[in-house]
Amino acid sequence: MLEFFSPKSVAIIGASNDVTKLGGMLVKNMLDAGYKGKLCPINPKGGEIQGLKAYTNVKEIGEPVDLAVVVVKNTLVLQTVRDCAEAGIHHMSILSAGFKEDSPEGAEMEKEIVAEAKKLGVRICGPNCFGGMNIRSGVNYTFSHLLPQAGNISIMSQSGAVGSSILDWSCANGVGLANFVTFGNKCDLDEGDFLRYFSEDPNTKVIGMYCEGISNGEKFIQAVESMPVKKPIVIFKSGKTEAGSKAASSHTGSIAGSDAVNNVIFKKLNIHRAFDLDEMFDALLVFSCCSPMKKDGLGIITNAGGLGVMSADAAYNAKYVEAAKLAPETIADLKAGLPKLAGITNPIDIRGDAAAQDFKTAINAVMKDKSVGGLVIMGSPLDTADLVAVANLLVSIMDDIPYPTTVCFAGGKKCAEADAILKKGKFPCYPTPDRAVRALDILRQYNIGLEKTNAALEVPKVDGRGKVKAIIDAAYSEGRHSLTEAEGKQIFNAYGIPIPGEATVNSAEEAMAACDRIGYPVVMKIVSPDIAHKTDVGGVVVGVKDSAAAKAAYEQIMANCKKNKPEARLDGVSVQQMVSGQEVILSMMRDAQFGPVVSFGLGGIYVEILREISQMHVPMSEQQLEEMITSTKAYKLLSGARGMPASDIDAIKDVIKRIVLIAQENPEITELEINPVLVGKKGQGCWAVDCLCTLKH
Amino acid sequence: MLEFFSPKSVAIIGASNDVTKLGGMLVKNMLDAGYKGKLCPINPKGGEIQGLKAYTNVKEIGEPVDLAVVVVKNTLVLQTVRDCAEAGIHHMSILSAGFKEDSPEGAEMEKEIVAEAKKLGVRICGPNCFGGMNIRSGVNYTFSHLLPQAGNISIMSQSGAVGSSILDWSCANGVGLANFVTFGNKCDLDEGDFLRYFSEDPNTKVIGMYCEGISNGEKFIQAVESMPVKKPIVIFKSGKTEAGSKAASSHTGSIAGSDAVNNVIFKKLNIHRAFDLDEMFDALLVFSCCSPMKKDGLGIITNAGGLGVMSADAAYNAKYVEAAKLAPETIADLKAGLPKLAGITNPIDIRGDAAAQDFKTAINAVMKDKSVGGLVIMGSPLDTADLVAVANLLVSIMDDIPYPTTVCFAGGKKCAEADAILKKGKFPCYPTPDRAVRALDILRQYNIGLEKTNAALEVPKVDGRGKVKAIIDAAYSEGRHSLTEAEGKQIFNAYGIPIPGEATVNSAEEAMAACDRIGYPVVMKIVSPDIAHKTDVGGVVVGVKDSAAAKAAYEQIMANCKKNKPEARLDGVSVQQMVSGQEVILSMMRDAQFGPVVSFGLGGIYVEILREISQMHVPMSEQQLEEMITSTKAYKLLSGARGMPASDIDAIKDVIKRIVLIAQENPEITELEINPVLVGKKGQGCWAVDCLCTLKH
Repeated sequence: MLEFFSPKSVAIIGASNDVTKLGGMLVKNMLDAGYKGKLCPINPKGGEIQGLKAYTNVKEIGEPVDLAVVVVKNTLVLQTVRDCAEAGIHHMSILSAGFKEDSPEGAEMEKEIVAEAKKLGVRICGPNCFGGMNIRSGVNYTFSHLLPQAGNISIMSQSGAVGSSILDWSCANGVGLANFVTFGNKCDLDEGDFLRYFSEDPNTKVIGMYCEGISNGEKFIQAVESMPVKKPIVIFKSGKTEAGSKAASSHTGSIAGSDAVNNVIFKKLNIHRAFDLDEMFDALLVFSCCSPMKKDGLGIITNAGGLGVMSADAAYNAKYVEAAKLAPETIADLKAGLPKLAGITNPIDIRGDAAAQDFKTAINAVMKDKSVGGLVIMGSPLDTADLVAVANLLVSIMDDIPYPTTVCFAGGKKCAEADAILKKGKFPCYPTPDRAVRALDILRQYNIGLEKTNAALEVPKVDGRGKVKAIIDAAYSEGRHSLTEAEGKQIFNAYGIPIPGEATVNSAEEAMAACDRIGYPVVMKIVSPDIAHKTDVGGVVVGVKDSAAAKAAYEQIMANCKKNKPEARLDGVSVQQMVSGQEVILSMMRDAQFGPVVSFGLGGIYVEILREISQMHVPMSEQQLEEMITSTKAYKLLSGARGMPASDIDAIKDVIKRIVLIAQENPEITELEINPVLVGKKGQGCWAVDCLCTLKH
Repeated sequence: MLEFFSPKSVAIIGASNDVTKLGGMLVKNMLDAGYKGKLCPINPKGGEIQGLKAYTNVKEIGEPVDLAVVVVKNTLVLQTVRDCAEAGIHHMSILSAGFKEDSPEGAEMEKEIVAEAKKLGVRICGPNCFGGMNIRSGVNYTFSHLLPQAGNISIMSQSGAVGSSILDWSCANGVGLANFVTFGNKCDLDEGDFLRYFSEDPNTKVIGMYCEGISNGEKFIQAVESMPVKKPIVIFKSGKTEAGSKAASSHTGSIAGSDAVNNVIFKKLNIHRAFDLDEMFDALLVFSCCSPMKKDGLGIITNAGGLGVMSADAAYNAKYVEAAKLAPETIADLKAGLPKLAGITNPIDIRGDAAAQDFKTAINAVMKDKSVGGLVIMGSPLDTADLVAVANLLVSIMDDIPYPTTVCFAGGKKCAEADAILKKGKFPCYPTPDRAVRALDILRQYNIGLEKTNAALEVPKVDGRGKVKAIIDAAYSEGRHSLTEAEGKQIFNAYGIPIPGEATVNSAEEAMAACDRIGYPVVMKIVSPDIAHKTDVGGVVVGVKDSAAAKAAYEQIMANCKKNKPEARLDGVSVQQMVSGQEVILSMMRDAQFGPVVSFGLGGIYVEILREISQMHVPMSEQQLEEMITSTKAYKLLSGARGMPASDIDAIKDVIKRIVLIAQENPEITELEINPVLVGKKGQGCWAVDCLCTLKH
């Protein structure tokens, strides 16, 4: 993969002297980036291109180059792949468009290219991509002439246009990039591949990604989970609504939507998902500039009360940080060091006429406070304030501040000079108090993710696959892709998921034995193909409470039916356990990209009102299972709110574990929903009452 | 009030030759702003200040000036007020600090000043404020030398520092201001006064406000409701959290009211509440630049697919706008006019190499579409795109576009030039697709607010005040400020709020009559001072269903008690209506700033899980009452979700109307909560079961 970022030699296939053409732009951009390796323009006409010797074909170079960058017409790409292979070139970035993104014919061409490249051992980035960049190596084979500084952020973007926006943002904000790559149609190399490379790249501290969908979920997850050194990842995935409109057959699917799976995966992998460009930029900046945030407490220092109030609001609304409660010694230090009028509780308001020295005094005091894990510095562009001096001070002492620190000089024109100093000094600064606080919230969230422990799920030992395989095969043999309720219950039986007990009996003795086994209360009903309305003929007894009642009920039902429907065939009496409890929905859906995801939520009336479904990806840890349940509003109800009895949450967990097993052992099952699971009081267990099960097509 | 913005003559009291001193800054800022009126520096030393004749005292000027701006020491302010009054000056902006915000002694001084000013007929802005500005009049008596362009936004800010940030933002973004004022401690003039002035000022199109609390809620509401021409108002009120409120009170000494009430009031008044500075700026900009947005549909035009997806996501998440479904004719026009590869469904993707002309083609086509009410133009800073040309095009055709239009050139450095053209051309541009879409969402929300009709609440005719006054007086006479449950129920009776029926009877005939009157089912219980455990002696019958059962129950209870407890005194049988239904909470709280606010929410277990309370300010319209109920998640449950029976929502509305009456007619009641109200099925009514009522101290 190094070939895409630090190639020793590069061929531009489709090179041109005309710098307004894409093939001319690429050569010019490589030259402007100061590329020191061997650059070989390829053009059928040969000659010289932008001062470089041009070759008519890659094969003419005489030795393999590390990377071939392709901008020829779509119809010529297949032959170009063959030429490259013949010339011993194994890495190609195909910028040409007109493939899958364009038309069915284009998609067909792309398929052929992929097959040919695979056969010939050529790895492709693209097609329809925007190229790549590495500032340190003087490499820029993108369509953009914008060259950010060298830095520690590596970017990958599905979209070239969004990639351009990121480059432009980097340049405007003095943010340094390590690597930059766009992968367009991702016909071969994708997120997982570049993620793996970035994670191993010593110049990369943070990884940022823009995409509209992840192609190979398994590869992606593995790349993240196997990172040799954990690095923060920020992903902005758009297209969340398009995905949401996809038809979902199950209840949980329709509530959570398919984009929700991305949230589940990103959260599981401790990836920060940004929901707009601002948030992506803000997050990249804080990870790029700051050390880890190891405590929740924020020390807020401001020259303006108003900005202090805004910061306090933001800290209050934040999920992972809060305004620190300063220690008495800190407050004493502040009182001793700051002017009389200063506000010395957090937020520390050093007033509009504060000198840079006052900021330093406050920072020094707060730095020693054990409750503080990060600092937020606020400045208003008052005429009485010298924000430039404050910025210079901050840059000069930044190495001495043991905490991540963000700055907000709230304004525009007058703050620009001070902001520029901070940016140059690699100090993360933000336009509003909210964003300065949010950045630290994101930073802290990442560290909390790192601190989490994950013990392997203790799954029950069951041997269900054989029985389930038989059920599935039978369904397939009948051309069915959905199972009946009876088949679903057989699956539950095979995996030890409790269902209400039932039996069909043919004597009073059998009835007593069956009821004793199932547990009371039970409902007993006549079984007869000739009786439609069982109650009308006295064929139903509910609430049977003990053995004697079971005997009496059996005899009564048979007598009633013989008397009221003498001509009917009587095939016995069915005995069903009467269960009751809180309705819960449990389900498993196999996501096309990421595989099985288990969902949990309250059922019945609550599902309509709460519309709350909590999800976790399989495999999951004990902690993730626990969090899946306890993080919900539903948990409050199940654990016994307002004097309601607590439900059997252990029983729910046990069923989830068995669903996990079903998902892992039965790849044919794409969707399994139990709605409802009736959950009894603590210690009573739970019962799967209804079942929906869909098989792979 | 004109005197604060366009004074013909100004005295700076505390003026100085030293421009690093506040009194010197003010003179310099007035001169730099090009003030053409009479400027009178006041300094006990007299002489000349910054080239102007200085007076030793305002009385020395010899004629009254329109406005006195004060920066003298806090202890001298009281005398200054007297001097001004003596000199015939009736308007003072007091920038001096050291009052309520500082110490109890300061608060005392402030009180004296207010009393004196009132007596002498002097109106005060401040103290502890940051002054004011009006560009058109060449007036700047703030501590800031930043002079934005003249424009149509009028700003008021409680905080001078936040005011500075707003000025700085205006300058950086070429945003024009009409008036600017800060009011600090608001000892006399406050939000309501300036709002009234701005609403009548012909140069003001939009009003923006930053505050940490509204001082006089009634005046404020009246100022908004009586605006001669409706103008959009954007308020950023911080101090919304407990933590923030704390910082607020230590800042300017204002008490931030219970924050949820602010949401209720702002929503009622069709004021946009911004929750951070970005949002405030974004909203001010769109109102300043755009015409009203009269339809929900957005036409989105982009040169980058990725930005299009982001915009579509943002439109999907927006509350008041959505991506328009384009008409077939529009799509045909787009197909005919745009290059082959362009995406012609909304978002319209005219591709990265689109020329400005392609933007024009797309805009022209979309402009004719009846489903469109606003446009969003997105540009990525690709090398193949000429955003400067696009910006110039947009500015040149902006007057021809019949819809509000926002632009996002997503990037930084390379977008800056194009952004500058847009800003100069008064075209609202935003850094991200989300913010460009949100701006139109805010714009549309305002118009929807304007379009709403409000019919006066049809309140039932009851004459309850007399009875309630007697109950309240009795409580006060006993030194009580909370009423008993029995007194609460008397209030309900006085205002016709139904409570479960009850009676005590002394014969079977009376029992039958009482039960018939109350309605079935009822519970009947022995009344006896000697019987503690009524059930044990057979003294309770529940579920009495009809007249005959009532007779039987009476006789049985009396017989049981006589037999089982022969020595007991029997005082009769109590008959109580057995009510059941959905638990609902209804309450009224009298907010210190804004007066009565009525709350509605589900009770019982739901209140724990949903934590949803919907509120409306009194007085309310029929529509506002309706919205208060229907906008909740609870409504789904009450209106009959998942086959549950629908509850009697009309009965809830009727109780709310009676609570409104109680609030309006009984100013002594500060809090009234009915928890629960049991709501029967549709047509059955509802019953107030428990009551909490607190009186003013």
